[in-house]
Order: sequence, then C-alpha cells, then structure tokens
Amino acid sequence: MADDKKLTPRAEDFSAWYNDVVLRAELADYSPVRGCMVIRPEGYGIWERMQRALDDMFKATGHRNAYFPLFIPQSFLHREAQHVEGFAPETAVVTHGGGKELEEPLVVRPTSETIIYAMFAKWVQSYRDLPLLINQWANVVRWEMRTRLFLRTLEFLWQEGHTAHATHDEAEAEARQMLGIYRTFMETFMAMPVVTGRKTDAERFAGALRTYACEAMMQDNKALQAATSHNLGQNFAKVFDLTFQTESGGTDFAWNTSWGASTRLIGGLVMTHGDDSGLRVPPKLATTEAVVVPIWRSDEEKSRVLGAAHALRTELAGRVRVHVDARDTMKPGAKYYEWEMRGVPVRIELGPRDLDKSQAVLVRRDTKAKQPVALDHLASELEALLVTIQDEMLAVARTRREAHSIRGGITYDKFREIMDGEGAFVYAGWCGDGACEAAIKEETKATIRVLPDEEFRSPEAPRTCLKCGRPSTSEAVWAKAY
Amino acid sequence: MADDKKLTPRAEDFSAWYNDVVLRAELADYSPVRGCMVIRPEGYGIWERMQRALDDMFKATGHRNAYFPLFIPQSFLHREAQHVEGFAPETAVVTHGGGKELEEPLVVRPTSETIIYAMFAKWVQSYRDLPLLINQWANVVRWEMRTRLFLRTLEFLWQEGHTAHATHDEAEAEARQMLGIYRTFMETFMAMPVVTGRKTDAERFAGALRTYACEAMMQDNKALQAATSHNLGQNFAKVFDLTFQTESGGTDFAWNTSWGASTRLIGGLVMTHGDDSGLRVPPKLATTEAVVVPIWRSDEEKSRVLGAAHALRTELAGRVRVHVDARDTMKPGAKYYEWEMRGVPVRIELGPRDLDKSQAVLVRRDTKAKQPVALDHLASELEALLVTIQDEMLAVARTRREAHSIRGGITYDKFREIMDGEGAFVYAGWCGDGACEAAIKEETKATIRVLPDEEFRSPEAPRTCLKCGRPSTSEAVWAKAY
Repeated sequence: MADDKKLTPRAEDFSAWYNDVVLRAELADYSPVRGCMVIRPEGYGIWERMQRALDDMFKATGHRNAYFPLFIPQSFLHREAQHVEGFAPETAVVTHGGGKELEEPLVVRPTSETIIYAMFAKWVQSYRDLPLLINQWANVVRWEMRTRLFLRTLEFLWQEGHTAHATHDEAEAEARQMLGIYRTFMETFMAMPVVTGRKTDAERFAGALRTYACEAMMQDNKALQAATSHNLGQNFAKVFDLTFQTESGGTDFAWNTSWGASTRLIGGLVMTHGDDSGLRVPPKLATTEAVVVPIWRSDEEKSRVLGAAHALRTELAGRVRVHVDARDTMKPGAKYYEWEMRGVPVRIELGPRDLDKSQAVLVRRDTKAKQPVALDHLASELEALLVTIQDEMLAVARTRREAHSIRGGITYDKFREIMDGEGAFVYAGWCGDGACEAAIKEETKATIRVLPDEEFRSPEAPRTCLKCGRPSTSEAVWAKAY
Repeated sequence: MADDKKLTPRAEDFSAWYNDVVLRAELADYSPVRGCMVIRPEGYGIWERMQRALDDMFKATGHRNAYFPLFIPQSFLHREAQHVEGFAPETAVVTHGGGKELEEPLVVRPTSETIIYAMFAKWVQSYRDLPLLINQWANVVRWEMRTRLFLRTLEFLWQEGHTAHATHDEAEAEARQMLGIYRTFMETFMAMPVVTGRKTDAERFAGALRTYACEAMMQDNKALQAATSHNLGQNFAKVFDLTFQTESGGTDFAWNTSWGASTRLIGGLVMTHGDDSGLRVPPKLATTEAVVVPIWRSDEEKSRVLGAAHALRTELAGRVRVHVDARDTMKPGAKYYEWEMRGVPVRIELGPRDLDKSQAVLVRRDTKAKQPVALDHLASELEALLVTIQDEMLAVARTRREAHSIRGGITYDKFREIMDGEGAFVYAGWCGDGACEAAIKEETKATIRVLPDEEFRSPEAPRTCLKCGRPSTSEAVWAKAY
C-alpha cells in the first residue's frame, strides 16, 4: 500500500513533497481529463468550511448569491479590449451542441464579468438600484498548459463577487473592503498571514483600473497570490451599456468591482502548514477537529475502551467535531500515521491504563506535544487547546514569513543571489518603470507581488530603485511566485 | 414599470402565469445565451436553503461531498451502450482549447456516471473500501431544444449522488433510502406531496437496472418528475472495471447507485404553491420568513414606528428570519404587493394605531388571513404561525392532488377525455406491455409516471389494462408531465 511509503521530505524536493501530501492525504487525485483534478472528500470538506466562512462574511456585508450561465457567447468576451487579450488565448470553446455546429461558438467561462455586467445592464435603471452586490460560487475553466493539483488546473472552483456602484469612491471602498475580508478569512480561519497591496499595471487583472491582492509566503519562500479584488472602473459598464439615472436626473455609467478566491487556497493551506508527516489543518477548517484512537489488546479491553470513547464522543457532540476511529483492522500506530497525514489537529489516545487513571492523552498535530488530561474536564481543555493551536499556527507562519522577509538596503547582486537560492519576500524600492520590473522578471523570475499597503511598508521608505538606482516612487514586495 | 402590470391569472394561461411569477418574483431571468437562465438572488436563496436541507440529510446518512471534472472524454460516454444512446444526442462538445483543436473532443457533463465510476475503479480495491458514498453539487448541460425557466434549461444546477456497494441488495436499499430522503425533503421542506414508485423500462435512466422517482402534481394537474434514484446494477462497474476483492477472497464487480435532484425543484415549488398574486414560499425554504412593513404618515410617526419595527427585529433575531422594509420611496400598499409577489410567508403590519394598542397585524401569505397579535407575545405566536403555515400548505397541496387523482374503473375513452381536458393522476391497470404504454403516449401524451409504491396503490388492485383489457400486472399512475 502507498501508506507504507514515506513522504518525500520538504527539504529534499518541496514540489514532490507537495504532490505526495495532496495525494496521500486524499485531498485530490488526477483525473483522466488532462489538467483536471478530482477533489476528494477530505479536500472538499476543507473547501466546504472555507465556503461557509467566506459566504457568511459576504452576506454580513450585504452581498447575495446568484448564478449565471457557464457559457459565454464568444463575441461578449471580445467586447472589452484588454479583457479579451487576457483571457481569449486560454479558453475552452464549445463549437457543437445537440449534434449540430453552433452559429456562434460558446466560451466556457474563464471569469464572468462580461455575462454578469450584461445582466446588470438589464436590472439597473436608477441610482436606487445601486449598489448591486452579487456573488457567485461556480466552476471556471482556463486552458493552462502546465498544471499542478489545486494551484493551477484547467477547471477550478471559486467564488466571484461582482458589484455595481454609483461612484468611483464607493467602488474603490468595496474593492478594499473585500480585500480586507479575504485577509481576515486567511488569517483567522486558514492561519495563513498575508501581505496586502496593489498590483502593478503589468500584473493587473485584464480590464481593471486597479487590482489588489493578498500574497502569502509558502514554506519554499515563494509567494502564492491567494485572492484578488478589482476596481474595474467604468470599463465594463461602458462596453455593456450599464448606465443608471443619477439622483440629479442625469445618466452615468456604473462603477464595478469584482473579487475572487478559489480552491487554490487549499494548495496554499498545504504549503503553509504541511510538514514531513503530512498535512496540518487549522482547527477552524478541519472537518474533524479531534480523532479518538482507542487502544486495546483483548476483547475485554476493547469493549471497555470503545465504551469510554463513545461516551466521550457523546460528551463532545455540539462542541468539538470529533471522530472515533473504531476500526479493528488497523493497529493504533497505523491509525496515528493516517490521521497525522490528514492533518487532524488533535489526536486523543485512550487505552486501559489511561482509563485506570481516568485520563486520556491529547496529542497536538502541529507540535506533536502530548499531554495527559483528566476525562472530567477533557471537553473544556480540548476546546481551549484547539483555540491555542489555531492561534499558534498563525503565529508560527507569521514568524517564518518575517524570518524570510528582507527589508532595507540590498544590492541587486545580493537580490539575484537570494532569488537564485532559497528565495524571500524582498521589500525594495521601485522607480515605477515597467522596464525595470520586466528586466528583473527576465533575469531572476521574481515579480512584484504587491506595492504593499501602509501597515506592511518598511519604517523607512526605500530611496532608490532596486534595479536602476533612480529615485524610488513606491516600495515593492518582490518574490518568485506560484 | 413591470410591477404595475397584473400577473396573467392561472385559469387564463397557466404557462404564461408561471413565466410571469418567475420573472416578477425575480427568481430568474433569461440570459443572452440560448436556453440558459440566470438564477437571481431571490431564486438562488431558495436553492441555498434546499441545498442545506438535502446536504444535511445526505451527510446524516454517511455520504460525503466531492467534485469531479466538468469535462468528460467523448469516448467515456460511449462505453456504456444505453448510456450513450440516452445522452450523446444532447451534449455540448468542446472541440478547441487554448487556441488549438483537441485530439479528442470533450463533452460537457450531462451527468457524471462515467467519469465518477472511472475514479471509483482507482480507489476501490477491497470490500473494506465499500460502501463508497459520494455526492457532488454541480452544474450539468443537456442540449434541450425547447426550454422553460427552471423546468428545462440547457444548463442546470443539481446534486448527483454516486455510490458503490458489495451486493445488489445493498445497492437496492441505498437507491430506496435516497428516494425516501427526497420524499421527506419534498414533503417536510417544500410542502409538496409526492407519489413514489418505479419507472417503467421506457422511462428508466439510460444505463440503469431500475429507476425510482418522486412525482408531484402541479396546479395544472400535470406531473413533475421531482427527483430520481437509480439502481445501476453492475452495468457501469463492468464497463469501467470497478472491481473489488470480496471477503472470501474472490473478485467481483461493484454495484452502483446514482440519484439526483435539481434546480427544477424551484419550478415545482412555484407551480405547487403560487397563486394569482405571485409566489408562496413555505416558511422552511423562505430566506425571509416574515417582513415587517411599518406604516407612517408623518415624520414623527415614522420615527416611532421604525423604532418599534427595529426593536421587533432585534427580538426576533435568531428565532425568525425577519426583514424590516424601511424604504421611504414606496407606500405600504406597494410594499404589500411586492412581498406577496415574492411569497414571503408572513407580513407584519405595524402602524401608529397598532402601537397604541401594543399590537401588530400578522397577515398570512398563504390564506391572506389577518390577525392582530399583542407585541408581548408576538415572537412565540409568529413561530407557531410559521409552523401552521408550513403544515397547512402541505395539507392543501395534498388535498388538491387527491381531488384530481382518479382511481378505479375508468374506460379508455373517459381517460382520453380527461387527458384532453383538465388532466389528472389516473391510477389504472397496465398489462406490462411497452406497446400499450407507447400507444397511450402517442394518443394522449400521457405517460406512466410511476408504478406506485405500496402505500400509494389503490385499495383494490385494478384487474385489466387500461388500453388493451388484458390482465393487469401492475397498477400505474398516468399523467401528462413536464
């Protein structure tokens, strides 16, 4: 069985380790369709918890869910010039339906701005219909040539928010608000710290005025773009005639935003928290927060220990998501190994000797620390431990990121050495010229992840551009990225 | 504005009434893509509540969610002979991806048996891996020529359960269990009574051994197939080599089931409960269970009444899903009209004279009955009223169905007259010969909806076939259907 084989250690080959964890923790599997994956129940369970958390936050800020067609007429995609340039080359195209060739080919949505703003134009008449705050949970398709499980697949699952506003400033506030929601979600639920900021023109969404992003550092010191939020300006409104009657009686084009996060986040979770024993899931996203592994050697012990395990499950019901692993085809050690691989935050070992002492042993997945806990107050101690684990996973990830973030005076030679080597988030000055940005990308494969928001900026602003030495106009965060 | 126009009355043109309600209650809208609709927030909110209820029941019976690719290699669909015959003619086909023609065209899934059982074959080795109980929430595409909002669209949303078992009997029990879950959901949540039973060979799912269905009667006395559950036998297992090592050491093909329900249910909800004022949503599926409409004539009254409305909302929070309609751009009458159209189960009218009497007026959407209720115990009375409405909506629908169900001796001439006229569920004998079934369909457009389960069968079994007069082998429920 595959389970007998050790994972590739991270230090040996991070990329092989990642694939091993995704497959062995049964998060996903390759499918017979090139570039498309199957999300298995262990992975989908995490996605469901991510969806619930994000959806609650979207609704709490006044957004409502809707559903728009999978197919987009090819001509729609071509209406916004930058948008078609960005997306047309990577589309899947339906040319036949019901046995006949179609008059106009249909594109499988790579993103839904065009079809959604065409509908908004039908629904919005007056300033009273604004803001219009819509979100969609959907699958999208982008014809990628080199794919990686969760990180880059032909088809992926995501949510895409789409809103319309009466003014530029309202749209800008919305785009920033949603970036904040993503950040809160990633830190609070995923225990994954992010740097937020604005993308450069070169990295901006095709058709946007401004793109904001959350960037997380993976354990190989590369960046993962974890979510984006766009102020689309009036670009799409002009193309799809999304106008409204203003309060003063005139007519204006609406201002749009769009924002999205995808199943790629599951890849981010693996690469932020996994170790050489497998996955580590933060408690808030774990479908099983604690697994009880009963230990027995005789039938008599078995019935005693299982009885106690089920009593414990009953006691924890409604407080902690707990599973009792009562399989009698596996030894406890093999069970430990399996649940460690799947990243369940706490293991509860329960054997006859523990019962003699009216205790169980709690084992943390994140630190592997063990502690005996009296059964009498196990429920409250377990709840407290889960909170601690959630907090410490974030703290550990943040410490690691900061340890691999370089700020202040760095020469370009030193920068190249770092990007050739172990990588980092390098905070450095940028002159604002796309030519410097392109040259650095060409020479080092590093890109500007974001022009960081104020709280992430260095205490002292860099004075000169990392590449050309001219005066710096913005601080930039450079890294190689997924 | 469209809102000033009355709905087409049901009695005048049921089909036009249906479209009016769907559009005016803002459940859905036509899209620029032929045959594809947009599900608007009012409709999607109902779907989310349906999803939550079904998903909870699926999980409570041990099923887990997963996600499989949207695209299916064309050759996969062709492996099961009946399956390809049933689905190939109505597929959408992707021939180009990333700007190039594909070597093998990809079909947009019309249903996922083929791709899912190909994956099951990879995951299942031994009887210990069984049963495998998976569900998927997804979009599917069937190239329909004549489409109707929710009822028949090119793309629709659904869930498809897929399971693998060690024996025929376990698969059969699973198929029946899921039929029961659908029925419970439809009766308990949708307040939509159904007749359950088995489909004839002619109406069976393409590739199944046996198909079971829930059939509901709409207000035009036509049947809506509301969900199906299939015992697939070993048909797909043989084609995709889904084998397992049995407990005794041999090898056998697994037994599969699949079962699905879709956004079509929203159409069923409209046609079961709607009236000439619009939609009526059963409380359990309503995103808003009660809407407070404050009534005022002066600014002073406004602040007093709105204060009371918001206090009421605070009191009801966590108990009843309530919305306060505080818009000052509309008169109360216009608000009543709008919320009736959208089917909110209870309206709470709150004016200065009500406050003088420390009361509010509750208005039921289903019966339009009004009752003043003291504010002191409004919360508990409202909760009780919502339970009553839920129960009575089911009772009313069941009574209506029974009033239009015909059992016992009926001649074929009389049957034709009924099917030409107002329609009905006709319980009659059938010889079991597909020729009689086909002839009746040809002559009357009525089909056998199900061979009903025992509890729905007539007290006295029919003796002869409705069509040919030969001895009856099963009682059958005949109706015209959507």
